[in-house]
Amino acid sequence: MGSLPGGMNMVLEDQKFPASADKLGRFERVADNTTISEELGSLLGRAPLFSDFTRDDVKSLAEYMGVYRAQANETIIHEGDVGDFMLLIVRGEVDILKRGYQREQQHMTTVGAGTTIGEMSMIDGEPRFATCRTTQATTFGVLTRDNMAKIILENPQLGSKILVKLVTMLSARLRQTSAKLMRYMEGVIS
Amino acid sequence: MGSLPGGMNMVLEDQKFPASADKLGRFERVADNTTISEELGSLLGRAPLFSDFTRDDVKSLAEYMGVYRAQANETIIHEGDVGDFMLLIVRGEVDILKRGYQREQQHMTTVGAGTTIGEMSMIDGEPRFATCRTTQATTFGVLTRDNMAKIILENPQLGSKILVKLVTMLSARLRQTSAKLMRYMEGVIS
Repeated sequence: MGSLPGGMNMVLEDQKFPASADKLGRFERVADNTTISEELGSLLGRAPLFSDFTRDDVKSLAEYMGVYRAQANETIIHEGDVGDFMLLIVRGEVDILKRGYQREQQHMTTVGAGTTIGEMSMIDGEPRFATCRTTQATTFGVLTRDNMAKIILENPQLGSKILVKLVTMLSARLRQTSAKLMRYMEGVIS
Repeated sequence: MGSLPGGMNMVLEDQKFPASADKLGRFERVADNTTISEELGSLLGRAPLFSDFTRDDVKSLAEYMGVYRAQANETIIHEGDVGDFMLLIVRGEVDILKRGYQREQQHMTTVGAGTTIGEMSMIDGEPRFATCRTTQATTFGVLTRDNMAKIILENPQLGSKILVKLVTMLSARLRQTSAKLMRYMEGVIS
């Protein structure tokens, strides 16, 4: 991946696992750069990740992303797996499922075009928090940790834009989850 | 703050509220740059924010941060307030309190040196999620949204390092909170 400056190496180059983009090998890959750019560009104005992006930003980002297509009922991320990429759903729909304390899988939510998933593992390298399964034919963009590191090095302005968005999206999710937890703790929901 | 590139303006320059560092005016401020650098440097090896930082990184960051001292039982962040800065506790202890659904304030946790608080509002500009009150004399560093934007522009390498850390810390907190919520939802805790 080249040399990341200073301590960033420890965060982004510490590969405890093989590049897991390999795991995507079974899905049909869109190989053409123009098509990737067009697929991602279709999310402008819809995906929270792109809310401050220009068309040029998307074009630059497209050079670092792959686009894949999965059929219905395919598991694209397995809870507990190591994984170093995030997904951006371009088209289709994905169920988010999580094993409970008693090991039974619970349906948490269903997400569609414009949603990003797996960004926590992409950044922190911890195991996947939930399972993601397509409910219909689904097209998704993939950004690996390696390529995120490359963006930060080669296009720091785009890198910061993506990182600011990730912080914003995680904050929103943390606020929602904490508020819900609060209501359970108070016994308002049970 | 100078000109932030492209759409980043919308994220970081959209000042819906007056610079709230003013609200810190009642606390004693450490004015000397060397002392700020030394205070922050004392957290090297202890603060998660600094886990990949060199002493030079801390020195660079110190130029963008203020350091303040509060007495015991002072509220440094009020839930619901607008606020555009984050805090890094250098020394002392802070209670995190949140109003519940029935408006009663609940003690969520107590945090000490090395902990960052308020980073969600610093980035997303949403109201403060919880109240932070000192339990003893406490020294803390302050990074405003304005200065975070300046770091991204003037020292993108340092900016990325901070943003990667924020994403990592928020991910960890989201994982913990979601796991706890999951247990409540299953009735394992009630």
